[in-house]
Amino acid sequence: MVDFNVLQPSAPMIGRLVVIGLGLIGGSFAKGLRKSGLCDEVIGMDLDQQSRKLAVKLGVVDRCEVDLALACNGADVIQLAVPVLAMEKLLGLLANIDLGHAILTDVGSVKSNVVRVARFAFNDMLARFVPGHPIVGSERGGIEASNEQLFRHYKVILTPLEQTDPAALAVVDRLWCELGADVEYMQVERHDKVLALTSHLPHLLAFCFVDSLAKRNEIFDMFHYAAGGLCDFTRIASSDPVMWRDIFLANREAVLCALDTFLGDLDSFRSAVDTGDGRQLLSVCTRARMAREYFSNILVHRAYIENDM
Amino acid sequence: MVDFNVLQPSAPMIGRLVVIGLGLIGGSFAKGLRKSGLCDEVIGMDLDQQSRKLAVKLGVVDRCEVDLALACNGADVIQLAVPVLAMEKLLGLLANIDLGHAILTDVGSVKSNVVRVARFAFNDMLARFVPGHPIVGSERGGIEASNEQLFRHYKVILTPLEQTDPAALAVVDRLWCELGADVEYMQVERHDKVLALTSHLPHLLAFCFVDSLAKRNEIFDMFHYAAGGLCDFTRIASSDPVMWRDIFLANREAVLCALDTFLGDLDSFRSAVDTGDGRQLLSVCTRARMAREYFSNILVHRAYIENDM
Repeated sequence: MVDFNVLQPSAPMIGRLVVIGLGLIGGSFAKGLRKSGLCDEVIGMDLDQQSRKLAVKLGVVDRCEVDLALACNGADVIQLAVPVLAMEKLLGLLANIDLGHAILTDVGSVKSNVVRVARFAFNDMLARFVPGHPIVGSERGGIEASNEQLFRHYKVILTPLEQTDPAALAVVDRLWCELGADVEYMQVERHDKVLALTSHLPHLLAFCFVDSLAKRNEIFDMFHYAAGGLCDFTRIASSDPVMWRDIFLANREAVLCALDTFLGDLDSFRSAVDTGDGRQLLSVCTRARMAREYFSNILVHRAYIENDM
Repeated sequence: MVDFNVLQPSAPMIGRLVVIGLGLIGGSFAKGLRKSGLCDEVIGMDLDQQSRKLAVKLGVVDRCEVDLALACNGADVIQLAVPVLAMEKLLGLLANIDLGHAILTDVGSVKSNVVRVARFAFNDMLARFVPGHPIVGSERGGIEASNEQLFRHYKVILTPLEQTDPAALAVVDRLWCELGADVEYMQVERHDKVLALTSHLPHLLAFCFVDSLAKRNEIFDMFHYAAGGLCDFTRIASSDPVMWRDIFLANREAVLCALDTFLGDLDSFRSAVDTGDGRQLLSVCTRARMAREYFSNILVHRAYIENDM
């Protein structure tokens, strides 16, 4: 059991950390906390044998388990780092296992679906479930890319529920802080709306745009003339297709809402091009550029912090 | 007059090169050719006094002129490197000046509007007009960013007309080759269609998307949670608003056609999200990612050439 009162910086805070799903995110979380000395033991679990072998070989975990119940036995904290839709199935399985006093948390990109399933699957356990989401890129996946610095200076959003035990929340918060993350709390619905706008919709547009070219067999020709725009779009569209299918389905409502608002604005821009309304076009492009300048300041500030530490 | 028969690698090929518009593209073109020794003299012209001063100070040109007629007097080649819509006005002014035997060429991002104006403005002169477009990024503009290596290994598309004098085309081709560019010929309409797809439409989507957030005052909040998608979109949307307004207006037809095709595909994707058609979402995302892999090979090949030379 966690005792915050006797917590010392260098002393182990928890006994056993279990990380289920050894991809980039799960692997980086496990590796960082194993190195931190904050956990007595870090156990990994993954359906893929190769990932389990690599996780031990690369020092990401102390050891791996194949059986879910065995892996979770005696756990203090269980981190769920599987794809968004697999999360639903996994929560169902965990509901049938005696998890003892363990704190459950996750890293899913969408929170409302995970919380919905958790509410359905758990009773008392819900108080010890802390939904979370580290906002880091995911183009390069896999345990091989695990990096204990991955979360450093990046946002991690926790979306505690009314029922969430403050002590459980504090433990998860502390683990992320140990990895250098900038932890913030948000309502579940707010999180899903913000992510739909900042991440899901741009990805949707990029996937759709690149496929729109590709399926007309024009892309192989087009790529030879690609400079700015297309290059950036294809980079965004190089993310894992399964992960993104899951995200679009799991965050259906917020994604559709964001898309429809955008489509309205896009239609206005289309009309401005059609009618030759240069003033309207200029004002849209100018505002967009000003927003970038504001954003650049945030990026510069972030780089400054990174160099400083 | 150019005499190709006596052309030697190190000997000046042309007497006087005039570059009108000393931005990043015009400046880099002038600087590179001045260094190449292919021209006896490189003269710059720009409406902005500061740009003219800097062009001389930075060794971009031998000297600058303020008056268009004076600048073009005795020119062998005149490069038009002004924004797309300013090109139309400039061609009108040039039509009233005796350009002697000069070859005219340009770097406009859209070709059909430039050619339309040139047809209207010139009679005999049309044979010596070689429309062109170097496909290089343009986020960082201005004479200060002039770089004689800018076009190295990048495509330059020339769109000669039926009337174009082959000798004039050969001279312009040779100048770009001297700068290390990969010169290719294309029909005017084809050029505008290709660029609408590879560059204009992605920029339109990025400008529109970023503005859609910005005008709802959400962006300042959103930016703090931006990881992948939004960052890339804002980078694209940081390009010069006036230049892009001009491009959208000048390439109206091709841009609208590309946008409408995309909107059809986007609508299908929207339906797939709405109805939970995971198979459809996965196939779009997978095809898009495969296209990226194909594209990566082109990029790797390009980097390989660059390192090799």
